Amino acid sequence: MFYTDKKLQFPVRVETPSPIFARALQQAIGGVEGEIRVALQYFFQAWGARGPSKYRDLLLNTATEELAHIEMLATAVALNLEGAPLSLQEDISADTIGGSVLNGMNFRHILSTGLAALPENSNGVPFNASHVYASGNLAADMIANVTAESSGRVLATRLYNMTDDPGMKEMLSFLIARDTMHQQQWLAAIEDLGGLAASLPVPNSFPQEQELRDVSYAFVNCFVDGVPPPEGRWSSGKSIDGNGEFTTVAGEPMGEEPMLGSPRVDSGAQSEQIGSTRGSSRARGADGNGARG
Amino acid sequence: MFYTDKKLQFPVRVETPSPIFARALQQAIGGVEGEIRVALQYFFQAWGARGPSKYRDLLLNTATEELAHIEMLATAVALNLEGAPLSLQEDISADTIGGSVLNGMNFRHILSTGLAALPENSNGVPFNASHVYASGNLAADMIANVTAESSGRVLATRLYNMTDDPGMKEMLSFLIARDTMHQQQWLAAIEDLGGLAASLPVPNSFPQEQELRDVSYAFVNCFVDGVPPPEGRWSSGKSIDGNGEFTTVAGEPMGEEPMLGSPRVDSGAQSEQIGSTRGSSRARGADGNGARG
Amino acid sequence: MFYTDKKLQFPVRVETPSPIFARALQQAIGGVEGEIRVALQYFFQAWGARGPSKYRDLLLNTATEELAHIEMLATAVALNLEGAPLSLQEDISADTIGGSVLNGMNFRHILSTGLAALPENSNGVPFNASHVYASGNLAADMIANVTAESSGRVLATRLYNMTDDPGMKEMLSFLIARDTMHQQQWLAAIEDLGGLAASLPVPNSFPQEQELRDVSYAFVNCFVDGVPPPEGRWSSGKSIDGNGEFTTVAGEPMGEEPMLGSPRVDSGAQSEQIGSTRGSSRARGADGNGARG
Amino acid sequence: MFYTDKKLQFPVRVETPSPIFARALQQAIGGVEGEIRVALQYFFQAWGARGPSKYRDLLLNTATEELAHIEMLATAVALNLEGAPLSLQEDISADTIGGSVLNGMNFRHILSTGLAALPENSNGVPFNASHVYASGNLAADMIANVTAESSGRVLATRLYNMTDDPGMKEMLSFLIARDTMHQQQWLAAIEDLGGLAASLPVPNSFPQEQELRDVSYAFVNCFVDGVPPPEGRWSSGKSIDGNGEFTTVAGEPMGEEPMLGSPRVDSGAQSEQIGSTRGSSRARGADGNGARG
Amino acid sequence: MFYTDKKLQFPVRVETPSPIFARALQQAIGGVEGEIRVALQYFFQAWGARGPSKYRDLLLNTATEELAHIEMLATAVALNLEGAPLSLQEDISADTIGGSVLNGMNFRHILSTGLAALPENSNGVPFNASHVYASGNLAADMIANVTAESSGRVLATRLYNMTDDPGMKEMLSFLIARDTMHQQQWLAAIEDLGGLAASLPVPNSFPQEQELRDVSYAFVNCFVDGVPPPEGRWSSGKSIDGNGEFTTVAGEPMGEEPMLGSPRVDSGAQSEQIGSTRGSSRARGADGNGARG
Amino acid sequence: MFYTDKKLQFPVRVETPSPIFARALQQAIGGVEGEIRVALQYFFQAWGARGPSKYRDLLLNTATEELAHIEMLATAVALNLEGAPLSLQEDISADTIGGSVLNGMNFRHILSTGLAALPENSNGVPFNASHVYASGNLAADMIANVTAESSGRVLATRLYNMTDDPGMKEMLSFLIARDTMHQQQWLAAIEDLGGLAASLPVPNSFPQEQELRDVSYAFVNCFVDGVPPPEGRWSSGKSIDGNGEFTTVAGEPMGEEPMLGSPRVDSGAQSEQIGSTRGSSRARGADGNGARG
Repeated sequence: MFYTDKKLQFPVRVETPSPIFARALQQAIGGVEGEIRVALQYFFQAWGARGPSKYRDLLLNTATEELAHIEMLATAVALNLEGAPLSLQEDISADTIGGSVLNGMNFRHILSTGLAALPENSNGVPFNASHVYASGNLAADMIANVTAESSGRVLATRLYNMTDDPGMKEMLSFLIARDTMHQQQWLAAIEDLGGLAASLPVPNSFPQEQELRDVSYAFVNCFVDGVPPPEGRWSSGKSIDGNGEFTTVAGEPMGEEPMLGSPRVDSGAQSEQIGSTRGSSRARGADGNGARG
Repeated sequence: MFYTDKKLQFPVRVETPSPIFARALQQAIGGVEGEIRVALQYFFQAWGARGPSKYRDLLLNTATEELAHIEMLATAVALNLEGAPLSLQEDISADTIGGSVLNGMNFRHILSTGLAALPENSNGVPFNASHVYASGNLAADMIANVTAESSGRVLATRLYNMTDDPGMKEMLSFLIARDTMHQQQWLAAIEDLGGLAASLPVPNSFPQEQELRDVSYAFVNCFVDGVPPPEGRWSSGKSIDGNGEFTTVAGEPMGEEPMLGSPRVDSGAQSEQIGSTRGSSRARGADGNGARG
Repeated sequence: MFYTDKKLQFPVRVETPSPIFARALQQAIGGVEGEIRVALQYFFQAWGARGPSKYRDLLLNTATEELAHIEMLATAVALNLEGAPLSLQEDISADTIGGSVLNGMNFRHILSTGLAALPENSNGVPFNASHVYASGNLAADMIANVTAESSGRVLATRLYNMTDDPGMKEMLSFLIARDTMHQQQWLAAIEDLGGLAASLPVPNSFPQEQELRDVSYAFVNCFVDGVPPPEGRWSSGKSIDGNGEFTTVAGEPMGEEPMLGSPRVDSGAQSEQIGSTRGSSRARGADGNGARG
Repeated sequence: MFYTDKKLQFPVRVETPSPIFARALQQAIGGVEGEIRVALQYFFQAWGARGPSKYRDLLLNTATEELAHIEMLATAVALNLEGAPLSLQEDISADTIGGSVLNGMNFRHILSTGLAALPENSNGVPFNASHVYASGNLAADMIANVTAESSGRVLATRLYNMTDDPGMKEMLSFLIARDTMHQQQWLAAIEDLGGLAASLPVPNSFPQEQELRDVSYAFVNCFVDGVPPPEGRWSSGKSIDGNGEFTTVAGEPMGEEPMLGSPRVDSGAQSEQIGSTRGSSRARGADGNGARG
Repeated sequence: MFYTDKKLQFPVRVETPSPIFARALQQAIGGVEGEIRVALQYFFQAWGARGPSKYRDLLLNTATEELAHIEMLATAVALNLEGAPLSLQEDISADTIGGSVLNGMNFRHILSTGLAALPENSNGVPFNASHVYASGNLAADMIANVTAESSGRVLATRLYNMTDDPGMKEMLSFLIARDTMHQQQWLAAIEDLGGLAASLPVPNSFPQEQELRDVSYAFVNCFVDGVPPPEGRWSSGKSIDGNGEFTTVAGEPMGEEPMLGSPRVDSGAQSEQIGSTRGSSRARGADGNGARG
Repeated sequence: MFYTDKKLQFPVRVETPSPIFARALQQAIGGVEGEIRVALQYFFQAWGARGPSKYRDLLLNTATEELAHIEMLATAVALNLEGAPLSLQEDISADTIGGSVLNGMNFRHILSTGLAALPENSNGVPFNASHVYASGNLAADMIANVTAESSGRVLATRLYNMTDDPGMKEMLSFLIARDTMHQQQWLAAIEDLGGLAASLPVPNSFPQEQELRDVSYAFVNCFVDGVPPPEGRWSSGKSIDGNGEFTTVAGEPMGEEPMLGSPRVDSGAQSEQIGSTRGSSRARGADGNGARG
């Protein structure tokens, strides 16, 4: 269960409202790098957490904090929209050098919300909850969370650089610092679980003898003949998980050309497909052979 | 530019076609953990790569390999659909214990493709390209790629456990091994870039003195008074990036209750909102103060 | 800012786990009638609220409560998935009369979450935040909230009837009661604002003399000639807002056939469209005349 | 079955075409407050209507009228796009003070339609039919329709204020008036059904003794200790449906901390989760107890 | 403006309701091959039609007819849902061989509509209006319409084959015939415009001397060295538009490896990218050279 | 399996970078008329192809080529973004006549990618894979491909006209030419299959005696009484497939008003709907009669 004290986690103030910056801030609310995403992601990870309860508590805690970040950003959007033009005529008269402010706005800030935030990104695309990664695998989830906080901090620094409003810079310096901590804490959770190497390959509960180990540490070079593969830490030496040695191999097919059965008469294909003699002389699929000989 | 030899990277065969498993395999094609996503993600990261070209080459290489994985899975779906029921009557007559096969199918496998794969997930939801993370920050992207390959390998092992068809298990043992390598190589790229600690906090090009360092390594406990925070590697000790010390602090608001200006007369609000005296005595936004005193 | 005590607002228990009911419950989490939607809707209404602050407090309060409902339902989904089949072979062996349980499941419950909830509806479609209605108009928002709670309560009663698990029925009896209250409180807020009639037409700040009052209270009958219009409270008598008298009029065009200008040569049309003499003899658009004479 | 006379329900004329206003008008076509949504919503409510046929006739009638509104708006968009810039060079030369017109446009108006309307909103997001609410419950649907017409009228008045083109203002004065009537008629339908109080709680066919009546009329205060709840019509007195008395109660958990079973070995979790001793000593789920003791 | 007579264009009757077939029929309502799509597509093409008005009249006419098809299908869905199970217990008791009917249903038919149709496809994915193709080019639109009616007729025949209900087969035999006519009429419109060859390449108003004619009729073989290209009508001989001769050429890059500038210091990249010396010695972009030498 | 040589199929150079044109180019990457769509569409058609293998080879070939087009366009976007403003202050100082460049940009080009391309359209809407048409019917697919290449070439010519950068015009002259060829080759494939007339109606494997031939070649006029239908090639004469004669008939209902059963008591309807006597005296659905008598 949840509670609020109605106050902002950190002060939000805007010295010079900018409806354009309001649009930009939306990326941090409803973008894939944004706060709705992390809040929901951490909540769903917590609510589905199986195993030691401290990770569940960790997730639930930070999910709850992220709500406060959405709140701060939604407030920042509304404050940046104070005084925004509501009409073409107002825009033109207010700006002697052209109707540029209104043109750069999220139009739904005028038309749909009456100058307030939306759960959308900076191009006006609504948040889609398919971005909530909650796999039931703690290591996969923690890495996903580092990803979320990395893309989140990249975004927040870009927003910081995009504005010179002191209030907005101050708010963002707080959010950037929180993203720093959140990157740290999810990595700390991986250490807590035994460390990165021990976590690999994710999921580490799948017996590696069931995977095709011939290709488990081989870099497959898909450049055409004669173009050398990129060289680096991945080319040779001990693998990161310590379970193998890196090699580089040329990309080559191990399979044959796939071959599907002819369409059935009542399956909606063209007659020319059905009448085809290709495929008629061979059983496919059911004989366990899906490749052209 | 790209080329193909028409052959499969690895053999795909199905001994006992299962239209239900065909539906499950769709998650590995068009799901957020699937192959279309990684192919497009690595391609867009490569095409936007700035900085040392070897990482671009690495990304382009593996993106190209992933196309072959989509191809294998699409072939596997089609082969699993051989012999699938096309009608309610056929379903019932084929299965003396009820129309269960057809009921569990992706109906578009019958109605839209004539027994072939779709760029959709296992619930029939089409792939949405917002899942392509290509941030222009190499470390963020490499971590995102580890995430993708972790969720991908979790998915592949679940599919492996879901079936007992030897052909499908063999194909999946190959894909699982490739996911192992891909987890490794993206982590190897981080080492190549200087190692994880040196990469943190992402982006490491943002001067940390511009973030609010008071809260950069503090775990904020959002449990209500008296409920202790979770303890672990994140509670105390050196931070993962080596730049600070972990602490735990109680969640407390540093800001005030936010306060927005009254709506304008022509903004589509109700009269009762506009007539409100709240907010009339104070300037907001423009005075840089967005909090109720 | 937000806090949690880690406890459920109301006990969630499942006597006989049902993976099928887990799928059904998803509608109450990520469906358009569900709890993510109301939580976000009330939050965004609160964060954008302009005018008397008590409505903002009301919205913020109930938004916070809704988080606890998502938590209850996510827990209920996970508990209903305990013991769910993870494979085709397990499903068949567990159920002597056919693989029906697995077929009816949300496949992502197996493949993507490891038996936990998702922010999706009962057909596996992820929640899309375009469903957050926060118009900046208090009356419109309150009515939208009554709508949300009405569709929510209809859904909750259908879920109640769908199961005979005592634990689930108990949980739903609580959620249904909360939906009752939430319908009441949003209607109470309309009374608080002056009552429904005074709120109409929404927005009541727009001067009605600027609308074309000839048709403000007229039911337009679009049935073809000779088919009588439906008769009811809307056919005659005082309008609901008290500002007019209901009438019924036959649907008839007041405008002419619309007529657009010819395409420009460089606009990507076919030559046959551009060469058309239609439209060449008349100015359109700029002369303020968009109808064929 | 449906028919048309090719004429507009009301004249659409544009004196000074504005490609920016064309973009804004898209919200009224393909936005969630727009006409495609209401047309489809009323149609699907009509086509699924069970019970007295006069409501079906009412819905079918107005759905048909709404098609004429989409038609008017699509025509208005096309007329506002007459003379729009098709290129960067044209934009710059036409506007001596910068390329602002093209920048503010929906680019698909140039690139995808050749200067005509799209089923998208004002930010270019296509209409998504999940916004069609047709619940099978007449009261829920009628309230949903009042919501649609309220948000629709708010939008139309904002568009009216956004432009000073006399033709557009005239068209919008008609659409605003129709929204007035449609708000009225759906409310009239509720009166026709017995009145609002009798309709509550929606659905009124669910026996209220099956809901947990302790909390059916209680406002739950989720503000942390010491912060008073908002007071208003919802705090005390007779409930709106006349079935209870409003009270205010402090938010407090009635349940315990939720507790899920450990992950299964073959479920794709990490080994560290599976080996956890938490949960091993207790049955969960199947024993009907989903809370940590 | 539009009108209705409340009657179905063709009788809709169901002898043996099938909730599973109700789900399948949804593909013809809200699927990409379905009737909402064609109705909206033809309407938007009509409302944006520039050039000879007869094509506009043709489009408006058939768009209006398609509404009647949605109506028929929505009615068919509702009739197929009569008697559908509303609960797990009812499903099990009604079907002695397992709960298969409910499992195969669109759950929103139970939970969201109370046994009526939805604007969704057969997997429960809502219609998305991005599928409305209305390009402003008459030939492109007519071909798009042939596509829509071809995929529509393929779908309708699959539905026909999927059921043995006489009423449903009769309804579908009508819809299939209408799809036949609609394929014919859009092709007839192309003839009316001058014939297919004269329409090519679409758009035929773009001067072909501005395209790179060297590759306008060349089949590019992207098979790797030594794998022969497919041979057919496209390999040699006069082109379909009569403007060239088909040839086959080997796929070979005409460009070089692309090369982007280094990231800027304040752009959110990693330091390791920015410090790179790659690219520093060459101007890019602005010098019109985006390829590595 | 797939390979790359890292080089561009055709040179991509930009003389004067334009962030606005970068946004426009996105339509050719992630728009419904764009290259991701055709690449995926041809791949999925190839991977599901049943019948003669040469069509599969044809599809696989061109799908592979399309990847090179995405690559070219993504490179073009990145090069057009070189030097783009990263902040409001930079935008204003760089452009003495107003902040118009930044306002017209895709904000994610700044905030999400660090000046690189995205799989989105020109309004920032991500690509949605539901646009992949792969029906399993060769004729339907070939026509769909002509549609894709027609809308693609219309788009490419509009982009060509939108810019005066010589490098961009050159790149587009190549892509336009390839679209010409691709239109030709899919039409050539139809000839190869026997020609267009022989392919009709699609699917030609469905026995036409099973469709309701009375209406197979009849143009249904849905204009209200007295408004004449459009006349053209579709009005009379031999049908395009040679199987019938075109006629024009007045739109008239052959069915009756539809009539659904009353809602069940436990289905979530209002009491007023359930208590209705309408429908109680007649069986519906099960008696095969879905029309009001």
